[in-house]
Amino acid sequence: MSHSLKPASFSAETPPSLLRSFRAVRDHTEFLAAALMPEDQTIQSMPDASPAKWHRAHTTWFFEQFVLLPRDGGRYRPYDEAFSFLFNSYYEALGARYPRATRGLVTRPGVEEVGRYRAHVDRGMAALIEGDADADGSLDTLVTLGLHHEQQHQELLVTDMLHAFAQNPLAWRGDGLPVIPGWRLPAPEPGEARFLQRPGGLAMIGHDGQGFGFDNEFPRHQALLQPHALSDRLVRNADWLRFMADGGYRTASLWMSDGWATATREEWDAPLHWRPDGAGGWLTVTPGGLGAVDPEQPVRHVSWYEADAFARWAGARLPTEHELEAAASELPDFHGHVWQWTNSAYLPYPGFRAVPGAIGEYNGKFMINQMVLRGSSSATPPGHARRSYRNFFQPEKRWQCTGLRLARDI
Amino acid sequence: MSHSLKPASFSAETPPSLLRSFRAVRDHTEFLAAALMPEDQTIQSMPDASPAKWHRAHTTWFFEQFVLLPRDGGRYRPYDEAFSFLFNSYYEALGARYPRATRGLVTRPGVEEVGRYRAHVDRGMAALIEGDADADGSLDTLVTLGLHHEQQHQELLVTDMLHAFAQNPLAWRGDGLPVIPGWRLPAPEPGEARFLQRPGGLAMIGHDGQGFGFDNEFPRHQALLQPHALSDRLVRNADWLRFMADGGYRTASLWMSDGWATATREEWDAPLHWRPDGAGGWLTVTPGGLGAVDPEQPVRHVSWYEADAFARWAGARLPTEHELEAAASELPDFHGHVWQWTNSAYLPYPGFRAVPGAIGEYNGKFMINQMVLRGSSSATPPGHARRSYRNFFQPEKRWQCTGLRLARDI
Amino acid sequence: MSHSLKPASFSAETPPSLLRSFRAVRDHTEFLAAALMPEDQTIQSMPDASPAKWHRAHTTWFFEQFVLLPRDGGRYRPYDEAFSFLFNSYYEALGARYPRATRGLVTRPGVEEVGRYRAHVDRGMAALIEGDADADGSLDTLVTLGLHHEQQHQELLVTDMLHAFAQNPLAWRGDGLPVIPGWRLPAPEPGEARFLQRPGGLAMIGHDGQGFGFDNEFPRHQALLQPHALSDRLVRNADWLRFMADGGYRTASLWMSDGWATATREEWDAPLHWRPDGAGGWLTVTPGGLGAVDPEQPVRHVSWYEADAFARWAGARLPTEHELEAAASELPDFHGHVWQWTNSAYLPYPGFRAVPGAIGEYNGKFMINQMVLRGSSSATPPGHARRSYRNFFQPEKRWQCTGLRLARDI
Amino acid sequence: MSHSLKPASFSAETPPSLLRSFRAVRDHTEFLAAALMPEDQTIQSMPDASPAKWHRAHTTWFFEQFVLLPRDGGRYRPYDEAFSFLFNSYYEALGARYPRATRGLVTRPGVEEVGRYRAHVDRGMAALIEGDADADGSLDTLVTLGLHHEQQHQELLVTDMLHAFAQNPLAWRGDGLPVIPGWRLPAPEPGEARFLQRPGGLAMIGHDGQGFGFDNEFPRHQALLQPHALSDRLVRNADWLRFMADGGYRTASLWMSDGWATATREEWDAPLHWRPDGAGGWLTVTPGGLGAVDPEQPVRHVSWYEADAFARWAGARLPTEHELEAAASELPDFHGHVWQWTNSAYLPYPGFRAVPGAIGEYNGKFMINQMVLRGSSSATPPGHARRSYRNFFQPEKRWQCTGLRLARDI
Repeated sequence: MSHSLKPASFSAETPPSLLRSFRAVRDHTEFLAAALMPEDQTIQSMPDASPAKWHRAHTTWFFEQFVLLPRDGGRYRPYDEAFSFLFNSYYEALGARYPRATRGLVTRPGVEEVGRYRAHVDRGMAALIEGDADADGSLDTLVTLGLHHEQQHQELLVTDMLHAFAQNPLAWRGDGLPVIPGWRLPAPEPGEARFLQRPGGLAMIGHDGQGFGFDNEFPRHQALLQPHALSDRLVRNADWLRFMADGGYRTASLWMSDGWATATREEWDAPLHWRPDGAGGWLTVTPGGLGAVDPEQPVRHVSWYEADAFARWAGARLPTEHELEAAASELPDFHGHVWQWTNSAYLPYPGFRAVPGAIGEYNGKFMINQMVLRGSSSATPPGHARRSYRNFFQPEKRWQCTGLRLARDI
Repeated sequence: MSHSLKPASFSAETPPSLLRSFRAVRDHTEFLAAALMPEDQTIQSMPDASPAKWHRAHTTWFFEQFVLLPRDGGRYRPYDEAFSFLFNSYYEALGARYPRATRGLVTRPGVEEVGRYRAHVDRGMAALIEGDADADGSLDTLVTLGLHHEQQHQELLVTDMLHAFAQNPLAWRGDGLPVIPGWRLPAPEPGEARFLQRPGGLAMIGHDGQGFGFDNEFPRHQALLQPHALSDRLVRNADWLRFMADGGYRTASLWMSDGWATATREEWDAPLHWRPDGAGGWLTVTPGGLGAVDPEQPVRHVSWYEADAFARWAGARLPTEHELEAAASELPDFHGHVWQWTNSAYLPYPGFRAVPGAIGEYNGKFMINQMVLRGSSSATPPGHARRSYRNFFQPEKRWQCTGLRLARDI
Repeated sequence: MSHSLKPASFSAETPPSLLRSFRAVRDHTEFLAAALMPEDQTIQSMPDASPAKWHRAHTTWFFEQFVLLPRDGGRYRPYDEAFSFLFNSYYEALGARYPRATRGLVTRPGVEEVGRYRAHVDRGMAALIEGDADADGSLDTLVTLGLHHEQQHQELLVTDMLHAFAQNPLAWRGDGLPVIPGWRLPAPEPGEARFLQRPGGLAMIGHDGQGFGFDNEFPRHQALLQPHALSDRLVRNADWLRFMADGGYRTASLWMSDGWATATREEWDAPLHWRPDGAGGWLTVTPGGLGAVDPEQPVRHVSWYEADAFARWAGARLPTEHELEAAASELPDFHGHVWQWTNSAYLPYPGFRAVPGAIGEYNGKFMINQMVLRGSSSATPPGHARRSYRNFFQPEKRWQCTGLRLARDI
Repeated sequence: MSHSLKPASFSAETPPSLLRSFRAVRDHTEFLAAALMPEDQTIQSMPDASPAKWHRAHTTWFFEQFVLLPRDGGRYRPYDEAFSFLFNSYYEALGARYPRATRGLVTRPGVEEVGRYRAHVDRGMAALIEGDADADGSLDTLVTLGLHHEQQHQELLVTDMLHAFAQNPLAWRGDGLPVIPGWRLPAPEPGEARFLQRPGGLAMIGHDGQGFGFDNEFPRHQALLQPHALSDRLVRNADWLRFMADGGYRTASLWMSDGWATATREEWDAPLHWRPDGAGGWLTVTPGGLGAVDPEQPVRHVSWYEADAFARWAGARLPTEHELEAAASELPDFHGHVWQWTNSAYLPYPGFRAVPGAIGEYNGKFMINQMVLRGSSSATPPGHARRSYRNFFQPEKRWQCTGLRLARDI
């Protein structure tokens, strides 16, 4: 892979020590924020996004709240009592919290103090990990969850910052405003798309129990697949430009009713972060800055509504999450390019049980009005995703690195 | 059944002639509106609802647009050219239309003229049906679709009018403002709830091809059921009052995140159309007027969010639509009381294809952000619903006759 | 005057008996609503407007609340106790009231019952007036206020209904939807506009104490006028068409900042209720139905923002309310055509005191964020306005019969 | 005066050289921002406010656009062409501009680069001032306007930052988050309030032509004052606490209708930036940080709606702007404490003419929907205000240092 998101993967070694993993992930967050000025790290460019320094603080808060205070309460001193209010994201069980929509109004603690907060918690965590025999493995489980949580926020930090910069006219001239200088998109998988014939039948779906998994990947269970065909390549910008040229954004019959209403109201005529270059082509911004839209690259920053309309235009459909999971090993661009929208609603697996307590609010309470995405993107930290991973967003969201591949009934 | 929605069922005779069916359904619409004053029929009490006279006109427009003009264009004269604009609901392929949100601003045509419009189209339809040999059965297919369409609007007419009246303080005193004087809820199924054990396995799901079905019930296909238990009774008001007394509406951990936000913002503390009676009990409005909440009746006017929270509180879950369809014949209160929320998103069946043309906008373009309901309600016209019927609404909607039954993993 | 609003003037005779005046005004309200169907009378086409049957009921409520109950409480029985809640407009001192924004949701009492309510109160009032010696004249004062109140609502009934009809596509074909069949605009004052030179100096402003006046016209006081010139003709549609042709709606420098924002957001390009006729001209609706925009008629349905921008474009300014009052007798088209926007904010006169009690909420509490209009319109009931009359609306409002005349500094 | 806003007054010396004045004002802006971190300077806490670094950049842009480019275009090179788009506030005549509501999304240029921009323009201005003989005084006029413009933004920078900090929970503990460390409120004028009797009559109003004045202070003209009494002291927090204790915020009859709606919707129960201290008293934030509400201090951060309601409660009224201007020299606390709401709408003086061109957009286009304030506040830069100065805000605004004094009719 050609991009620069990989220096700090904690899963590259087998088995890494917990502390080494902890430091690797924590360092990677700081690496991602390294080129951001304090001004950049402060703002929230829309309600869905969060400030970069909030991501840095909230991931730290997670370790403080869920690991240090419950397991090391006697020794560990919170950095600042007010932070439990400021940096709780959505855990109702942990009491009142600062409103999400106004995270961009909190200028203090500033960027440097957030750094000190991180260092303080890191010291506490190191002491805890080194001093705790962890006979039952529960510390490992909890810390590993915290690290995967932080990796999710690493991806959000990048996409949120990209969105913020895209609002600034200065992002659309010269080299733009790179979130991560030098960052480049991975080379697209070469070769033409081909539909794999898939016979259907019963398949085992869900996490196989080896290594970490979020609760929403469990329990592993049988599912019935219908016969279908699945493209072995992601939809590319060249394909998308044809859709656009064919009036895809102006043809109501291709769209879901809600999607058409959204596209009309928001005046969508291209993926998010695309702008005409004034000479008949298109510019786009990436974490590495401004550039021309590359026809060979998988399309990114499209909503489920757009992906679904595109599939209908192409005489195809979106795959189900089961179809993608079952075929993942046969899809060379499944990981590392774009999250792939499916036609599966984000619902609990049969027998799903949320973990008791506040930490059980992690996934289960979002299982409505969202569609599943599979694979992973170029902004996903290496080692984070896996075949059974279930990402999810509302069908109108476009600011994540989201694309699609096609399927067909046979 | 004890209520008055049945006098005009067109499916009670086998086989009814098409014209007899047509007249029966059309008459039933007028029966439902009979006690409404012109003032009542004019207003739109919220964006989801439509005026009663709009329902009467739109169902008429459907026959004019989809049957009379295409098949009898030479002979049939439209009643008023402007009505094709005024009474199109959401068919993009049929051109511009009057905005949905302001249907309540169209006072003309008035109630009487809508009656004349209906009579005009009815005459055209009678002439067409009697004069068309219908060698390929396509007229029968189209008219039957139009009649089922009108039946759906019959239910909406009742629930929309109920909502409108509920906004008027006069609905909450004396006998209230009955939509249909004399209307009564059907007696609840007697006996205590019992969980049926269901072993799971492969089941055939979807319409079996006998009689009418909407496109969203096709194609019939195999589905895999997990082992589960299913309550043979609907959740009742007595159950719901226990949920309320136990703080169900104030306990975030029972709710989906979006549901909690909605319940908090809208200040929900009981089902829609419930009000304290000032003496510790509750009043509610039904199509028949004002009355006390009856503990034995199935709870109605709850959203998916509430149904889901209730199920969690009860240590259960909502059934899937497949589970309900497979067990329907074992559930004595499956039909005629309340639509039952499922934990299934409204998605296309494998191999689903929308009908080509404008009429294909009927169902397919709504297959996102909605949850499936099964069964039928006391406001559903007799003969309209069936085991494979898929109703659907967004998870926050409460103005339909919606309730639930419980399921459990085993 | 050529229009049909005058048959029921109560001020035409000197002195009319109080009861005769009462009946004349009350009858005139019913005359205005005579051609409206129940459907028409029910809706509220925007938050500023009220349903026609609400106007009929609210004016009745005024007599019930402020006259019958306080002065005849022992004998008079309220028609329906709930009406005191339903038909209070904005009197905080009289307790809770039905929300203004949803007046269009109250279908019952219907049009006929509102008629019975009116008759009931009329009987009570007749009995009271005939049986009360009214030694101190306080009954006369109160009833006369109620009649002037009802006359204000007569004008609102017409302009509200005109707005409601204008939302219906059927209003824009044939003869449109007349509020009052046969109604015609008065003939414009003939002759070309001429600027009267006015030397300025001290002038007496405010009601002179002869006959009825609202509290906001008092106390009479001295004001200082600057030397100025004042047009003796209203601005006409021909003038307005020149403003439009010269880009008046697209030239930011002519507009107040708030006005420009409003005009841009609302996409104003002509007065309210104007539509292109498809052949280069303009159509408009009046209480009498649809017609071509007449270049000789005074422009109507323009906001203060538009009037102010027009005046700037014309190298002039809006007059002050003092300038208009002082010159009123020299302006032949001062009354009966359009209310004339001034550049005076609606503020209390020096020494103004609101009447104690609920009735004091009539005028004083609106003395902010509104601009004064002077004169009267073709929709103003005859005998209602006078030289010292102060009408007032927010600067963005356009649904009243509002126009302007020009002034200049000299 | 005890506070720290005065070190850089440019009007303290007579006559100051233009360049010395320029440097003094420009330095004062940087002094005000000196304690703010880059994070603080970036955010916009509400649509009315602007980021601190935007104020620093916009005031610089003013000199670039209105002075350097028109007068020194051949020599002066703009710092960055994009800044003319980014830092235009509201001058329509100068073309497109970045939307006001999202100023807080522009993280680049950062705080340091804004400093470089300021230095670049300052160098250009110094060269221009030193090299231009300014035979007609027009350069002096223009630069002086730019300096008064910058002084207005100095006050806004302080009040905007205070508002921003007040949204942060950390501002409400310890010493809070001072905008300007060490800043203190000036000592209140000692002694009890006394009403001065003022006989009324003709008075000269407006700027007398000596020294700088904004266009809205001209032309000087005669106005007629009614006899009245005017308090020689500002209303104090002790008075306001009595108003609160007497239910002032819960008594509709004291309020304008719009004010009551605003107070109810926004849940006002005290001035802006007041919070209960948990022990029966109140805390508030000032530019110097957190402190107790001092009963002797003039009340600040009240809207016109609140001021008007208070005056009615006190059996008094707000003074007119003419009354205040005429009596200013007799009011020892007229300047330097709080801007004083008047009952005068912000309207043009008789004969007012806006300056031609873009710079004429400065004042005239805001003369609607605003009320005049007189005097000056503790956040007003020394030397900025004067007796004829007309400040103006909408009646619901509270984030400026706004208070009141009482008047009475006699």
